[in-house]
Amino acid sequence: MVAEIVSGLEYSKKVLHEVGEKIAKTREQHPNFQSVLAIVQVGNRSDSNVYINAKLKKAKEIGADGRLIKLPDTITQGDLKREILALNHDNEVDGIIIQLPLDCKHEIDADTVIDLIDPLKDVDGLTRINAGRLARGELQRTIFPCTPFGCLYLVQQATGNPNFVSGKEVVVLGRSKIVGSPAAALFLWHHGTVTICHSKTPNLKEQCLRADILIVAIGRKHFVKADWIKPGAFVIDCGINVGEDPTSRKIYGDVDTEAAKEVAGFLTPVPGGVGPMTVAMLIRNTYEQAKRRRLGKKDQDDNE
Amino acid sequence: MVAEIVSGLEYSKKVLHEVGEKIAKTREQHPNFQSVLAIVQVGNRSDSNVYINAKLKKAKEIGADGRLIKLPDTITQGDLKREILALNHDNEVDGIIIQLPLDCKHEIDADTVIDLIDPLKDVDGLTRINAGRLARGELQRTIFPCTPFGCLYLVQQATGNPNFVSGKEVVVLGRSKIVGSPAAALFLWHHGTVTICHSKTPNLKEQCLRADILIVAIGRKHFVKADWIKPGAFVIDCGINVGEDPTSRKIYGDVDTEAAKEVAGFLTPVPGGVGPMTVAMLIRNTYEQAKRRRLGKKDQDDNE
Repeated sequence: MVAEIVSGLEYSKKVLHEVGEKIAKTREQHPNFQSVLAIVQVGNRSDSNVYINAKLKKAKEIGADGRLIKLPDTITQGDLKREILALNHDNEVDGIIIQLPLDCKHEIDADTVIDLIDPLKDVDGLTRINAGRLARGELQRTIFPCTPFGCLYLVQQATGNPNFVSGKEVVVLGRSKIVGSPAAALFLWHHGTVTICHSKTPNLKEQCLRADILIVAIGRKHFVKADWIKPGAFVIDCGINVGEDPTSRKIYGDVDTEAAKEVAGFLTPVPGGVGPMTVAMLIRNTYEQAKRRRLGKKDQDDNE
Repeated sequence: MVAEIVSGLEYSKKVLHEVGEKIAKTREQHPNFQSVLAIVQVGNRSDSNVYINAKLKKAKEIGADGRLIKLPDTITQGDLKREILALNHDNEVDGIIIQLPLDCKHEIDADTVIDLIDPLKDVDGLTRINAGRLARGELQRTIFPCTPFGCLYLVQQATGNPNFVSGKEVVVLGRSKIVGSPAAALFLWHHGTVTICHSKTPNLKEQCLRADILIVAIGRKHFVKADWIKPGAFVIDCGINVGEDPTSRKIYGDVDTEAAKEVAGFLTPVPGGVGPMTVAMLIRNTYEQAKRRRLGKKDQDDNE
C-alpha cells in the first residue's frame, strides 16, 4: 500500500479561498464588513517574525485584515494585560492571538495573559473557557484550536466523509495544551474512541498499532516508525522539528514519512501538511467571529 | 482470583474523619473558622431530598456547616441566577452546588447557571473554567469534580500507592460532564494512558479487556460482564441504576459485580462504593476552599 499524501498546502488554499469568497459575499450586503486579526508579539524572535508575516500575508490575500501589535521585550505582565484588555474593547478587532513563545525579559505567565482574551475573540481557542467547552463537547459554542481543527478538516476532506472519525480508533501521541489535549477532545466529540498517550505510556508502539487515525504531536524527529502504523491508517503528523544542521532551515515531522507511506492509507507531510492548515483555520476562525460579532449573530450564551 | 471489594463507605468515613480533624485543628488557632456548603435546590424531587439530606448530615457530623436554599419550581432562570450571584458574594459561604436535576416549570439551562458559580466556590468542580483547567492538567488550580476525585482516591488508597495510575492502561466508559469526561482528564494527568469509550464505540468489550483500571459510568444496569474484565484489573463502578421493581429502592451498578469479582483484582461495589466517596469529596473540597478563602491562603491566580 502506498499512502495518499494529504497536502495541507492545497487544502489550506481551499479553506482560504472559501473564506475569501465569504468575505466578498458578505461585503455585497455589508460594504464596510471587516475581519480583523490582532497578533500580539512580545520581543523580536526571528522565527516568530516568519510565522507572523505568514499569517498577516495570508489574511491580506483573501481580503481579511491583520494588525501586528509589537511590544518591547522589556514589557511587564501588567502592561501586557492592559494591551489585551484594550484589544478586547476595540470594536475594530475580531480575533486576538498572542504569538508564542514570548520573548521577554520580565517573567510573564503566558497562560494567565491568554486567559484574559475575550472568549469571543479567542481565535486560537486557547483560553480555559474554550478548553472547558471543548472538553465537555459543547461544540456549537467552542472556538476550535487551530491545529486540531486543521487535523480534523484534513481527515474529513481527504476521506470525503465528514463523519469519518465516528466509531474509529483514534490514538493521540502527546497531551499539550495547544495540540494533543484539544485534538483528543475534538476527535472524541466527533465520536472517535480516543486514547491519549504521553511520556509515561510504556507501550507506545503497541498503542499506535491500534490506531485507525494516528495523531502525532510530541516534537521528536521521526519518532514514529513504519512498523508502528496499522496498515491503511490515517496518520497526521503535527511535528515541527529542526534538524541537527544549524545552517539548514529544513524541518522534520514526528513521523518517519518515507517509510511510513508504505504502510499508511493517508499521511500528512512535513512541511506542507498540518502547518499551513493551522494558519488557514486561524483566519477562518477570525472570520466566523467577525461575522457573529459585527453582524449581530449573537451566541445564546448569556453567562458572559 | 477473588477481587478485593473496595468499600467506599469505609474510605469515605476516613476522608470525613480527616476533614473533621482538620476543622477542629484549624479552630484551635481560628475559633470562628467555618466551612459552609450551600446547596441550591429547585423544586422538591424526593430523590434530591434524600441526597441533599445525606450531604447536610455528613457535613454537620464532622463540624462543617450546610445551608439549603430551597427554591420553588416556579422560579425563572433570571431569579435563579440572582440567587447564585448572591451566594457568590456571601462571605459566609465557602462552597456552592446546584442539586441536579432541576425540578422546574420554566426552562432553565443548568449549565449556564452552574457556570455563574464563582470558580473558587465551585466545589462540585462543574464550571467550565474548572473543566478547562482539568483538561489542561493544571491540577494545582483545579477543584476536582467529586465523583472522579473519589474514584482516584479509592485507587490510591486501596492499592496503597499514590502513583498507581502512572503508566497504567485506563479505560473510561462514558463521557458525561460529571463523571466520564473529568475522570478521563484526572486519570490522564495522573499519568495513565487513557481511552474514552462511549455509545459510538463499536468494540466495548475488547476495549475493556485492555484496562488495568476500568471506570464505568454509563448508567446501564450490569452492562459490563465478567468476561469484559482483564484478570486482576481495578474496576470502578460509578453506576446508580434502579431496578425494574418500582416498590424496591434497591440500586444496581453498571458492572455485574457478582460475576466480575471472580476476575477483577479490585472492585467497588454498588451501593457503598463510589456514592459515599462523592459526598465525602464534596465536603473535603468545601473545607479546602474555606481554608483558602477564609485564612487568606490565596491562589496565585490573578486573572479572576
